[in-house]
Amino acid sequence: MGYIRCNSEHEGVNMSVAERRRGRGGGGAARRAARTAVSFETARYIERNIPNFEVLSEEALEIIETNAETVLAEIGVNIVENPAALQRWRDAGADVDGERVRIPRGLARQLCATAPSVFTQHARNPERSVVVGGRNLVLAPVYGPPFVRDLAGGRRYATMEDFRKFVKLGYMSKWLHHSGGTVCEPTDIAVNKRHLDMLHAHMTLSDKPFMGSVTEPSRAQDSVDMCGLLFGNDFVQENTVMTSLININSPMTFDDVMMGALEVYARNNQACIISPFIVGGAMAPVSVAGTLTQVLAEVLAGIAYSQLIRPGAPVIMGAFVTSIDMNSGAPTFGTPEAAHITYGAGQLARRLGLPYRSAGSFCGSKLPDAQAAYETSNSLNMGLLSGVNFMLHACGWLEGGLVSSFEKFVMDADQLGTLHHLARGIEIDENAQAMDAIREVGPGGHYLGCDHTQNNFKSAFWKSDLLDYKPFETWEDEGARDTQTLASLRVEKMLADYQQPALDPAIAEALSDFVARKKSEEPDSFM
Amino acid sequence: MGYIRCNSEHEGVNMSVAERRRGRGGGGAARRAARTAVSFETARYIERNIPNFEVLSEEALEIIETNAETVLAEIGVNIVENPAALQRWRDAGADVDGERVRIPRGLARQLCATAPSVFTQHARNPERSVVVGGRNLVLAPVYGPPFVRDLAGGRRYATMEDFRKFVKLGYMSKWLHHSGGTVCEPTDIAVNKRHLDMLHAHMTLSDKPFMGSVTEPSRAQDSVDMCGLLFGNDFVQENTVMTSLININSPMTFDDVMMGALEVYARNNQACIISPFIVGGAMAPVSVAGTLTQVLAEVLAGIAYSQLIRPGAPVIMGAFVTSIDMNSGAPTFGTPEAAHITYGAGQLARRLGLPYRSAGSFCGSKLPDAQAAYETSNSLNMGLLSGVNFMLHACGWLEGGLVSSFEKFVMDADQLGTLHHLARGIEIDENAQAMDAIREVGPGGHYLGCDHTQNNFKSAFWKSDLLDYKPFETWEDEGARDTQTLASLRVEKMLADYQQPALDPAIAEALSDFVARKKSEEPDSFM
Repeated sequence: MGYIRCNSEHEGVNMSVAERRRGRGGGGAARRAARTAVSFETARYIERNIPNFEVLSEEALEIIETNAETVLAEIGVNIVENPAALQRWRDAGADVDGERVRIPRGLARQLCATAPSVFTQHARNPERSVVVGGRNLVLAPVYGPPFVRDLAGGRRYATMEDFRKFVKLGYMSKWLHHSGGTVCEPTDIAVNKRHLDMLHAHMTLSDKPFMGSVTEPSRAQDSVDMCGLLFGNDFVQENTVMTSLININSPMTFDDVMMGALEVYARNNQACIISPFIVGGAMAPVSVAGTLTQVLAEVLAGIAYSQLIRPGAPVIMGAFVTSIDMNSGAPTFGTPEAAHITYGAGQLARRLGLPYRSAGSFCGSKLPDAQAAYETSNSLNMGLLSGVNFMLHACGWLEGGLVSSFEKFVMDADQLGTLHHLARGIEIDENAQAMDAIREVGPGGHYLGCDHTQNNFKSAFWKSDLLDYKPFETWEDEGARDTQTLASLRVEKMLADYQQPALDPAIAEALSDFVARKKSEEPDSFM
Repeated sequence: MGYIRCNSEHEGVNMSVAERRRGRGGGGAARRAARTAVSFETARYIERNIPNFEVLSEEALEIIETNAETVLAEIGVNIVENPAALQRWRDAGADVDGERVRIPRGLARQLCATAPSVFTQHARNPERSVVVGGRNLVLAPVYGPPFVRDLAGGRRYATMEDFRKFVKLGYMSKWLHHSGGTVCEPTDIAVNKRHLDMLHAHMTLSDKPFMGSVTEPSRAQDSVDMCGLLFGNDFVQENTVMTSLININSPMTFDDVMMGALEVYARNNQACIISPFIVGGAMAPVSVAGTLTQVLAEVLAGIAYSQLIRPGAPVIMGAFVTSIDMNSGAPTFGTPEAAHITYGAGQLARRLGLPYRSAGSFCGSKLPDAQAAYETSNSLNMGLLSGVNFMLHACGWLEGGLVSSFEKFVMDADQLGTLHHLARGIEIDENAQAMDAIREVGPGGHYLGCDHTQNNFKSAFWKSDLLDYKPFETWEDEGARDTQTLASLRVEKMLADYQQPALDPAIAEALSDFVARKKSEEPDSFM
């Protein structure tokens, strides 16, 4: 098995053709749009030209698949406070006993067959739309932390202002294809209203694809409605414009909130990642094979349910899996056991013909230090090699997911460039063989000045925009800065350079009006 | 292709049965030996139970192999100031023109065929002997830096005292199988004598296998002679007790010093790593395929020469390859291009049937910070997956190899544990399937207390001896320490806990006498 690079577009960097809507009457909104009609380089999503790394034998895969069917048929899953879902399962042929749903062998897998193996998530800038599935890898930022950290301000509760900064950084990060969802929890905004501000930020501060709200079915509906304003309602019904994160309460429990959100999205043809959230040894067996069995059973049930709502609704098989430190009970990240599960789950996803979500910039460290980077690199590399199609948390994750780190966001986002280059594989055409250069230079010479080097050096090597390669003396004269310090400067520079992508003023106004109206309809709740 | 773990000994941790030679007359040396008869856990070398990651197709491999033969036949290699070597090549059928040696197609590969695909390097403690080749991976520490760095003292020229500390840390590092060679350059000892002190340190402060001197043929001979004292001369002639590092001056130049050392080792049945030292774009073409072609041509010539000296002499095919930052000319580490070359060279080595050396704790960073860890993790993971059999520089490398870092040594050495666990693969026996646990816990339960977890948690997860998993508040109360700070404390603790492995006092005395006599025979030289 081997791959040769064949497509020079693998890493095509798209310059967005900014919409310029000057001069429509010279209103303030139009002028603002014109002023902000600048965009930044974004690499195309990764199309792998390297193989997947597979650790499970055919025999092992079959054992796990058989066991997962046994789990569904004999143990079953709990569907909590959702009588309509229980009825759908009963109608589909499952054995429903109270909230327990036992799914006959083969039924869940058969239902999953209508889910597409590849789908496009559209961005409002069509050049930033992503194709999820196949050999592709789409990179999205950290999701969910209630805290932020930066070098100047330390660790603190996240605010909407932090959220907007992360959306801006994501927009400007070349190797990030997706704006994500809850890049941090804006804790200064009411719980029942913050989804409006978050979606508004993704829609107006970036032109990359984004995620919808899942914290209430009504908020999922708000997300769909806002997309209707941004993309047009007809477009939304016919295309996928959001990918949202539906966690399963492992072991084997589906709650009404997450399922309610899933129902809204599936009904509207919007994509969901259906993802067990597992700390191994706590929410799943302590063994890798046992965890994979449970993960497979859970995603089979969840994805089958999405297809009961709407056959053909786009879904991603997720696996968020960490290990546990058995002394402290703390989750651990970037571990070899997480790698095994990620590799194995990738094989299971491919056998199901479904897009696969796993891995990320996971770490347990409190600081963007060496521990954070070891753990993150372990996970990012494993994510690429395991065939992940959608990598949430690809940058910015800190402290077990409690913290979104500004510095780590740009540090990780820089490292994502290595995944793009790794995925290219090795070119073997005549230019790459370089026989003329070897002849020209000969024994004892050097290649720095030869034609082949001059013609190829610009594209030959991945180049960090952050890491330090300076001579020791220069580095020392400049203050002996560590990676965190360099990253802090880069965050500052990127935010200073940020310019908002253009948006039709009518759309911008409609979105603002929607948010204002929705906010006025109910009192703030922080519960 | 898949692998199932089948052997519980994969990661067997050997407790050394310390030699206790009490009471032989009660002399001071015997008492010292008895006092020091304590040893530390060392993991057995890695025996992979996972596949290798292969990026080159059969077609690409054949192109590279054909091109390498073309390089040897049409361009040739330079053998500098070594008339005897030129004569050996002439006798073997090469076309020798001045110092240029052109090797007919197929000849070098044919000569390489007598090199063993697997060999044992014996340690003086037989439980720490390593088997190099096959699916094994032997981990050895950083080699060569003239500087050291630690948190307290900063960056400074390395001394013999630093050297001894690194040997002690290596001896006590559980996941490190090998004591290495020049763990740092002891710049306070004369150049013509430091090899004696270095070997003496490896032989007396550790009982792990080690490397010999290559800086002069006479120093290689001293290394062999000292091994004669340590292992017995007959044992040395019949067994391999050293693996030494022979760098090729890329492109395609073999100097008399390195070749002279190689001749000594091969003649004495001692192993050499024959390794191009390449900064891509400077000493080899800027393209991966071109670099692989040159690497293969160089190692074919070098290994063939070792077999001209003594057919069957153990060798390792090396590939030390980094990229270059084309702006500054600085070498870069942990890059995707280095990964491609490492994966590809692994495939070429396996097709040659030779053990393979590559990868390591490479980084360009000046500090053991996030940059250092990203770059190092990238390289370590790629080293495991590319099928490396001997990984030099597996821990402690900093600043492009200019610095041996005390903190990074223990940080990397801790991460080496992840490679051991990754290499295990995934167990699939009934216990690992955990179906009883899934039944017992059921939907909504948790696994922390179940029998399966209790019976398996101790061995289920790799556990760091260094990284921080504490709750934020505890971590903050303890001083909000970063990885470097934790590592500094660990260095201190390990050195405080160090106890010398026992050694027959007669051997210890013979080694000291040899070093003293050799040192007295010539004046110090610092050139």
